[in-house]
Amino acid sequence: MRANLTPDIDLAASLFEGLRERTYDGVGVTRDAYGKGEQVAHDLVRATAEGLRLETDIDAAGNLYMTLPGADRAAKRVVLGSHLDSVAQGGNYDGAAGVLAGLSVVAGMQAAGFTPARDVTVLAIRAEEAGAWFPTSYPGSHAALGRLPPEALDVRRLDTGRTLAEHMRESGFDPDAVRAGAGRLGPDNTVAYVELHIEQGPVLDAEAIAVGVVTGIPGSRRLRAARVRGEYNHSGATPRRYRRDAAIALAELAARLDDHWAALDARGHALVCTFCVLATTEEAGFTKIPGEARFQLDVRSVEPASVDAIFAELHRLVPLIEARRGVRFELGEESHSSPSLMDATVRDGLARAAAASGVCHRLMPSGGGHDAAAFAQAGVPAGMLFVRNQNGSHNPHEAMRMEDFAAGCAVLTRWAAEGAC
Amino acid sequence: MRANLTPDIDLAASLFEGLRERTYDGVGVTRDAYGKGEQVAHDLVRATAEGLRLETDIDAAGNLYMTLPGADRAAKRVVLGSHLDSVAQGGNYDGAAGVLAGLSVVAGMQAAGFTPARDVTVLAIRAEEAGAWFPTSYPGSHAALGRLPPEALDVRRLDTGRTLAEHMRESGFDPDAVRAGAGRLGPDNTVAYVELHIEQGPVLDAEAIAVGVVTGIPGSRRLRAARVRGEYNHSGATPRRYRRDAAIALAELAARLDDHWAALDARGHALVCTFCVLATTEEAGFTKIPGEARFQLDVRSVEPASVDAIFAELHRLVPLIEARRGVRFELGEESHSSPSLMDATVRDGLARAAAASGVCHRLMPSGGGHDAAAFAQAGVPAGMLFVRNQNGSHNPHEAMRMEDFAAGCAVLTRWAAEGAC
Repeated sequence: MRANLTPDIDLAASLFEGLRERTYDGVGVTRDAYGKGEQVAHDLVRATAEGLRLETDIDAAGNLYMTLPGADRAAKRVVLGSHLDSVAQGGNYDGAAGVLAGLSVVAGMQAAGFTPARDVTVLAIRAEEAGAWFPTSYPGSHAALGRLPPEALDVRRLDTGRTLAEHMRESGFDPDAVRAGAGRLGPDNTVAYVELHIEQGPVLDAEAIAVGVVTGIPGSRRLRAARVRGEYNHSGATPRRYRRDAAIALAELAARLDDHWAALDARGHALVCTFCVLATTEEAGFTKIPGEARFQLDVRSVEPASVDAIFAELHRLVPLIEARRGVRFELGEESHSSPSLMDATVRDGLARAAAASGVCHRLMPSGGGHDAAAFAQAGVPAGMLFVRNQNGSHNPHEAMRMEDFAAGCAVLTRWAAEGAC
Repeated sequence: MRANLTPDIDLAASLFEGLRERTYDGVGVTRDAYGKGEQVAHDLVRATAEGLRLETDIDAAGNLYMTLPGADRAAKRVVLGSHLDSVAQGGNYDGAAGVLAGLSVVAGMQAAGFTPARDVTVLAIRAEEAGAWFPTSYPGSHAALGRLPPEALDVRRLDTGRTLAEHMRESGFDPDAVRAGAGRLGPDNTVAYVELHIEQGPVLDAEAIAVGVVTGIPGSRRLRAARVRGEYNHSGATPRRYRRDAAIALAELAARLDDHWAALDARGHALVCTFCVLATTEEAGFTKIPGEARFQLDVRSVEPASVDAIFAELHRLVPLIEARRGVRFELGEESHSSPSLMDATVRDGLARAAAASGVCHRLMPSGGGHDAAAFAQAGVPAGMLFVRNQNGSHNPHEAMRMEDFAAGCAVLTRWAAEGAC
């Protein structure tokens, strides 16, 4: 690699600052999907790309493509992308870091007079934050790939109540074309999709490692509206053998399932098992035995067998606890997603590029879902780089050091410059 | 005992009906302490007592005394009492049953032309439902005994926000005299206080026994505002060893404390241990590890050592769980009450009267608190009879069969007629 080929970190720093200024909401940043906040971010990024004289294009779903032409324009392109929307009162880095990394990579190539072998497209994706806006997975990526399920267009934004199709149309895009499957990217024209993203978790920071090369995005099994039904009774006047205590039944389930996870964890299974909500209901109060409790359970792993092991234990414990405690569990609907493994060639290429760049790194699974999963599902070789960050994500205190971001961008630059393999 | 000496159950049945009609709130009955509902009940009961030509009197706190004169007016009297207030949207029996039982006993004596050896006073007590109205224990009973702590007069009714003293004055009573310690009853003039009450729990019904003779009213140790502090983190991106999960820490505490209770229970300790509230807080939600949880703990027994055993285990577990899970428990203020044992002579007298009356009965501790505790604390020999009921208490579905009530009244009649010993 040419010695002077370095990413333009000053450009990214100035864009982070511009994004923060334009989307600050008084607490954090809000870049609402197919709303004003996301559009402001797209406008700033597009103006920057035009200033760099990149080829810019927007697809039917509003995804923004910013391409540095390569030596062989017929070759499959490299895509460096992520999303520009954020949660409400979120942080400045979740999503945006991946788009600005792509711009800093191609701007660095331009500044060095370097022409890559293939087109390098920086992709700003729409609407990734499913928990905050449209409760459907990766609509922007799926649309870019021509694979958005038509029913996803009818999902309603959680705050406005209007559908994804309505929001697309109001923003000047073409939901009918999206519904018809118009996409720009796929295995036929894309050699690899790589997404740089803040880690969101504490592992890299705790281990003093700047960059993670992601092995896969976990699949999940989830209970979002599970309940335990017992019977409200006088807490003083009801001896142990006459109780049907929903809260203690739930506590036992949670504690025993956590013991099972601890055992799997000790045997090296990489999974997480979280009771996100675990609560007596509003009727609970002093001198009453809780007659009802509710919970949400989130189990994830890149290994489906590990997730299934937790659910097998759950289904073993439930009837035992029901029989012992006279309660009834209503697990409700279970949602399910499959893991998306990152492409081995891309993964190894990124790891080699990190080693060659002298960037301390480790292999690790992702915790959350990312647009890269949609690309992997479409058969596009996908990879991810995690950048160490502090204070988690989805909050105003998200923190990422620019030197860690620069380390990630250096890895991306080397990998893209050396043919993306 | 004279063969024709039987309680006047028809009178009680008609009074239950009258109370229900006059205090029905559309859902259950509401007899608010020092409010309209309680006063309506006192008015009905007083009019009935005057119709029976009982001596009626009202003390400075508004407690109502209805006395059938005995042969020896200088002898210490027998008091048969309970409270007439109810919780909001409560049932018709909790409290009122004890007052109407007293009236049916003395009406039965009158009808039989029976003059008891001692005065028999039926006592309608004010404001027993501390959880519903004035959050202070037994203000009516304590005032009748001249033992109400002055600061209790400054406690505010939960719904109106006005003090107990203000409510007393508005109802036409004399809080200054109450504050000065004016009482009517004490060990010097009362041979025994006996309170008939619905059981509130399921034990008698489950065991097919009509009447319980109460051994004692439990003491308690309680945590009303305990918290666990951990750290909110991304549920997908935070491996097990980096978690500080407040909910799972609380679940472990609850499950292990419940195991400890099960062991004590199996060894014959009579106690109850209830996590009345056990809950993640409002910030909890999907994809987050709970950073905070709260709980209320209610531990009761007539044996202080049993209550203390639970708290000793609590204090042993807390630092272990804190160390294992990186959380911090804030137990908050602990409230405490001492048990009140029922008088052994009264207890045995009631049991003998039940046996002599052919009423199936058992000895049992109370679960909840009752006015009898205030009498016991004042040194008045106190006893209680529980009557089997269905559907618990403090709800519109309270159910008590009149034949069970009649069995309890028969026991009371025999016991009072035979000298209250």
